[in-house]
This record gives sequence, C-alpha cells and structure tokens, in this order.
Amino acid sequence: MGKVRSETIMHWDGSMSTREPSPMLPRIPDNDDLILYDYEYNASLIPPVSAAHKGMWRYSALLPLDDQEVRYPLFVGNTPLIAPDPLRQLTQLPRLWLKDETRTPTGSNKDRATALVLEYALRNKIGVVSCASTGNVAVSLAVGAAASGIKAVNFVPAHVSESKLRIMQLAGATVFKVEGGYECAFAFSRKAARLLGWGDRNTGVNPLTLEAKKTVALEIWEQLGWRVPDVLVVPVGDGITMSAMVKGFRELKACGVTERLPRIIGVQAEYCQPLKEAWERGEVALQRRYQSSARTIADGIAVDAPIGAALALHDIQESKGAFVAVSDDDTLHAISILARYAGVLAEPAAASTFACLKPALASGLITPDDEVVLYITGSGLKQPQYLAPERPSSHLVHDFAEVERILSSF
Amino acid sequence: MGKVRSETIMHWDGSMSTREPSPMLPRIPDNDDLILYDYEYNASLIPPVSAAHKGMWRYSALLPLDDQEVRYPLFVGNTPLIAPDPLRQLTQLPRLWLKDETRTPTGSNKDRATALVLEYALRNKIGVVSCASTGNVAVSLAVGAAASGIKAVNFVPAHVSESKLRIMQLAGATVFKVEGGYECAFAFSRKAARLLGWGDRNTGVNPLTLEAKKTVALEIWEQLGWRVPDVLVVPVGDGITMSAMVKGFRELKACGVTERLPRIIGVQAEYCQPLKEAWERGEVALQRRYQSSARTIADGIAVDAPIGAALALHDIQESKGAFVAVSDDDTLHAISILARYAGVLAEPAAASTFACLKPALASGLITPDDEVVLYITGSGLKQPQYLAPERPSSHLVHDFAEVERILSSF
Ligand SMILES: Cc1ncc(COP(=O)(O)O)c(C=O)c1O
Ligand SMILES: Cc1ncc(COP(=O)(O)O)c(C=O)c1O
Repeated sequence: MGKVRSETIMHWDGSMSTREPSPMLPRIPDNDDLILYDYEYNASLIPPVSAAHKGMWRYSALLPLDDQEVRYPLFVGNTPLIAPDPLRQLTQLPRLWLKDETRTPTGSNKDRATALVLEYALRNKIGVVSCASTGNVAVSLAVGAAASGIKAVNFVPAHVSESKLRIMQLAGATVFKVEGGYECAFAFSRKAARLLGWGDRNTGVNPLTLEAKKTVALEIWEQLGWRVPDVLVVPVGDGITMSAMVKGFRELKACGVTERLPRIIGVQAEYCQPLKEAWERGEVALQRRYQSSARTIADGIAVDAPIGAALALHDIQESKGAFVAVSDDDTLHAISILARYAGVLAEPAAASTFACLKPALASGLITPDDEVVLYITGSGLKQPQYLAPERPSSHLVHDFAEVERILSSF
Repeated sequence: MGKVRSETIMHWDGSMSTREPSPMLPRIPDNDDLILYDYEYNASLIPPVSAAHKGMWRYSALLPLDDQEVRYPLFVGNTPLIAPDPLRQLTQLPRLWLKDETRTPTGSNKDRATALVLEYALRNKIGVVSCASTGNVAVSLAVGAAASGIKAVNFVPAHVSESKLRIMQLAGATVFKVEGGYECAFAFSRKAARLLGWGDRNTGVNPLTLEAKKTVALEIWEQLGWRVPDVLVVPVGDGITMSAMVKGFRELKACGVTERLPRIIGVQAEYCQPLKEAWERGEVALQRRYQSSARTIADGIAVDAPIGAALALHDIQESKGAFVAVSDDDTLHAISILARYAGVLAEPAAASTFACLKPALASGLITPDDEVVLYITGSGLKQPQYLAPERPSSHLVHDFAEVERILSSF
C-alpha cells in the first residue's frame, strides 16, 4: 500500500484534526477517522488498466466471430475460480476448486451461450430469438435480449419454476407454457423458429451455444496457471454444458498447450438419470425411452431425452470419466454446505456437483490427491425456496440483557 | 477469429464428415455441426493471460494493506459498467451508464467493505465479526465470513426481509432480530463487539468500509477511459456508500489524474428522507430527530438517523450535487424498466437511482448531454417479491395450433 498519512485526519462530520502518524491501523479498527494517503499528485498509486476486461470475448480467435467490435452489452465470462479453505478442510480435498458461474448476468452458465447467440443476432440484424428451456436458458435469453433490444420468445414446461417465470416476464419475454413438458416445448420452439425465421438459441441445434460454453474450459485452464485439472464435475441435463467443456479442453490440446483432458464426472439426478443408465449399459446413444421416476428439485438437469446424449456418452468415455447420480436430499444438503463452507449460493442442479463427491470418493473415481473442479453452473437466488437453512434459528431480542444471555450460552 | 476449418465436421453423435469449407456461418445457424478451427498446435490462438484479475485488490496502493498475499477467497470488484442501447434510447440520454454491483458475491456493493474487513480479520486472526444491518450488509457478512472460516454475528431490525434473513441463516450466521429497529440494532452490535472483542464491520465506525467502497469510483473512472462522469446518482441510507464514492474521486484528484468531482445526486425514499430535508433546510448535520412516514420498499435506504449524515451533507455540497427523493411507485416502475431495457435485475434501493432521473431532468439537475452514471447498488434476486412483472402474461398451450394462433395476433 501507499504510505498511510495519518497526520491529518478528516472525521465523519467533515472536520479535520492532526495526530501522530501511525503506519498501520489497530488490530480491530474502531474509530471515526478517514484514512488518508500520501497522494502528492502521484499517479503511480493507481495501477495501469490491465488488458481490456473483455470476458469471454477475449477468446475470439476460437469463436466464430470476425473482428467487429462486440455489441452485446452485458458482461460475460471471467467468472471466479475459488477455493475457500473451510470447504477444503471439511472435504479433506486440498486441491478442490469451485468454478463459480453464479456470477454471470443472470446467474447461470447459460449466459455465455446467450451472449454469443445474441451477438450474432445483433450483427445479422435478427430481431427475434427463441428457445425451449427448463428455466435458466429462458431467463438468460429474456434478460440478454432485453438488454440488446431483441425480442425473446420462450417455450417452457408448464411446471416451470415460478420465480424463474417471473423474471422472464419482468424482462418482457413472450412466454409459452407448454403442457407436454420440455420435450414438447423443444419441438414447438423449433417449429416456430423455422416458420417465422427467428434466430434459434436452442442448445444442441445452434452450434454457437457449444462454442460459447466451451470458453469456461479455457478460463479454468488459465486460472489454474495453464494446468488441466485431474477431475471436472459437471451437472448433465441435455449434455451440452459438459460436451462444451470437453470441446474446450480438446481445443487446448489441439492448440498444443496441453496434453490431456480432465476426467469428466457427469452428474445426474437420481430421479432422472437416462445417461447414467445408458452409460452403465455400455450404450453409445440412448437406446430406450426414459421416463423420470419423480420430479427432481434439480430442474436444470431434469431432461428425460437429452439432445446431446450420443456426444455426452462419447465425451465421458474419451475423458475416462463416469456418470454419477445423486439424490435430492444430498443435493439439498450440498446447497447448505456450499453456503456455509464456501459462501456460494448454488441452485440444486449446480450443488449436485458437490453431492457427488462422496460417492465418487467412495468408489475411487476421485482420490483425495486429485485436483478437482466443481462446475457451479447456477445461482440459488433464482429459486429461494431451496436456500432454506437446515435448522433455521434467529433470536428476537428487546434489550441488550437478552443479547448477553444468549451469547453467554454459546 | 481464427480461420474456421469446416472441411471436417464432427456431428453431435460423434461421427465425422467432410464438406466444403465455408468461412462464415449462415445468418441463422441451425444445424448439428460442431465448429472446428485451424488449431495446428498454434498457441497464439489463446490470448495471453491479462494482468492478474485481482478485482478491487489491485488498488492496494490506496488501501490500508501491506503487501501480503490476499487471503479473502471470494472475488470482489471489476463490476461491469454497462450502457444498453434500449435504455439510452428510452431515456434519450446518449451518455447514460449503469455501474452494476448486482454482480458481486452476494449482489450488493456491501461486498467490497466485507472483503476488506474480513481480509483484515484474517490477517489479524480475528475470529468473530459482527454488524448491524438493514439486510444487505448482514447477508454480505454472513456469506463472506462463511467462506473465510470466520463467525458472523448479525443484528438486524425485526422486520428484516425474510429472504435476506434466510440467506444469512443458510450461511450459518448468528442472527439477532432487534425489536427496536435498525438504530437499536446498531447500538446493540456496537456494545456486543466492544464487550467481546469482536471485529466490528459497522459502516461508519470501521474506516475500512469506506476505504473498500471507494474503489468503485476508481473503477468507474477507469472504465470510462480515465474520465470523471458529469453526474453520479447514488442511493443514500447511512450515506457511507455515497461518501466513499466521493472519497474515491477526491483521491483521484489528489493523485493528480483528474481535476474535478462528479456532481453527486443522493437518492432517498419519499417515505424516509432525513438527509434530503436537512439539505433543503441548509443544515450541515441532522438537526432534528426524523421518523419515517411509512416503511419504504427500498429497505437498503430506510435509515432515519444516518450515521454519515454530516459527511454526506458535506460531500453533496462539495460535489455541487443535490438530494432527490423518489416514491415507492416510481421505484417499482424503475425495477421493471431496468429489467426490460437494460437486462439488469435491481433491488428497490438500487432502482431508485433510475427513478430519480425524471425529476432530476425536469429540475435541470441533469441535462440530456450529461454523462450520467447510475450506481446500481444491489440485486433484486434477494427480494423476488419486487421482481414481479407489471402485467404478467404467459400462454399455456397444448398443441402447436394454439402457438400459431397466439403468434398471429402479435
Ligand atoms: C444450473 C444448470 N446446471 C446444469 C445444466 C445442464 O446443462 P445441459 O442441459 O447442457 O446438460 C443446466 C441446464 O439447464 C442448468 O440450468
Ligand atoms: C442496495 C443498497 N443501496 C444503497 C444503500 C445505501 O448505502 P448507505 O447506507 O451507505 O448510504 C444500501 C445500504 O444498505 C443498500 O443496501
């Protein structure tokens, strides 16, 4: 830091006073001073602006974009890779990381794909973009389109999360709630987009979505100091998020900067695990129609007929990884652990990655020495009903004596 | 972008095929191809890592920190300064910007102060940190402390927002709901911290909070290309957020890189406007006891006895700015406008900055040519009840004919 200049002190009331310079603050700062520095017209106290903060656009050499200036107005990419000590200690995994995509414009990794699709739409003067979605894609498209002056049309299952629906509507999207569920919503949205010449943001049919989502792999590699982790844990619904991750690492190999893929663990929900079951049967594509046994709380990965099934099965295989299924109870518990030990507010589909650690460690899919990255794909703030404490407790107090009594029994 | 290599195409099922190279994608990409590039072991396709993404810590020369490595695990700072076209067109303000602090760990500017106080606590082995808060500070402290392995103790008004309370509890904070409201919560928290030797994160008594919050001014200046905006609109409760902003610009002047402060418009809620009224009476400190006329929805700025009153009145004066009060109705409407025209989900206190544009333009406080930055201090996702669309509408459909009928009447 610059030298702290404490000779002259400005107080909260704007008055000034003088006192002995003291180079550091007291252990527990507790006073009404403003802290001043030795400025002396010294511009070097301010660091130079670091290379333009372009977020995911800085990978444009690996995106299907020419050199025009980016028009998309929301900031996407550069999400934190964090490793809170309390979580590492709890899990006894000293090389555990969280790639935190709750920090995107609408709190999910879908914002990467939305950004590229809408950038493309802006450049090509496409005025309407549509999608089918279990929730997050639709929120992401609605909000991103609003900021871009583009019309969004969302097709969602009729049982879509109420809080996600409200955000889409607030942002001005046209929303169709489809009785036949996600698969039917997908069919309707494809048909409508073709019929009316809209841009189609559907993951799995618009290759831009995979391109955008792969950027997270490049970020992880950079953030680890140009290293590929041993294991990457990714929640899997349609499978695109995971296959995009693999494509990113594959491209790093193709560029000659890495030699291997991380082992990918694809996480599914116990109530909805078509890929896990197909993989256990050794299939290279979904061979039979799957039907959820119940509705999982992890709506982001509640997909009976994953669009990217064949690619996902192929990619897990190539990465020498595996599928794991986790229960809703374990996922709820994981939400609580991530909040309490890492300060991360995850939605169920995202927290499922933490829930899978225990079975993966038990079966040897992960060993305690592995460098493991959990892909935290979405924020819990959009579905506050799952952000409930396991043992809610607060103390209603009227006077300070009550505070003291309660604290003394701590 | 790198040359797109489309001779070899990988399909979703993992199979490969060959086709004519085409340099660009069709106008509406819609096929099942993966996009490949001319990698050829060419590392230059990947940009060099830009100067370490340190967020607000890069201003350490203007923070009271020595050169130790930062321990705080969450990423804070580098929030976007955005200017969505639709909003500029709607307002006819071609130089309007939003500084978007919804993109912090817990979705408010309080995360900057939390980060510095907890960094300080980690370096000084302080195990408990407490605060009083209308809501956002307590959420921020609870979550930041959880990630740091520090115990958080929150004193909040008994009528605190239920959704914010749940997050504090989920993150494992000890919460006291105080019957006497925010002022009483503040007194209790001060007393408890002194009694028990806790770190005190209270804004206005711990100078670290102001230091941390001033970093947003440095970011705005940088993001505008080393330019001070004409006007900065800031919501004002205790006044610290605003005075920290002014301190930041004052320090830029002191470093000799700028010549002036922006005019600051401090926004208060019609139902709770002690500073606006004191300012209109020409007072330099709060001279009489103020009592809210009703509970405003803008809980972040619902403060009857602002701790930083004198400094706030001083700073508004020095900046040649003014206070403006806005109604809850206008704030609700502002939430909707920010979502629909900018893709920003703001909480009421934050959206109040947009609500003040109309009166400020009418009274000449702002002119249409001014470069105006609205400080969007907090995310609406923590209080979903205010994220409701004004005219909710969605279409429940069973078959595609219904979709077509609805679309034909658009
Ligand atoms: C939070 C979250 N995580 C994971 C996924 C899974 O992504 P994919 O469907 O691409 O497998 C989704 C998809 O909606 C999601 O919303
Ligand atoms: C969202 C939001 N905006 C603005 C403010 C006002 O900050 P201050 O109390 O420092 O004036 C707060 C304070 O809680 C807040 O939560």
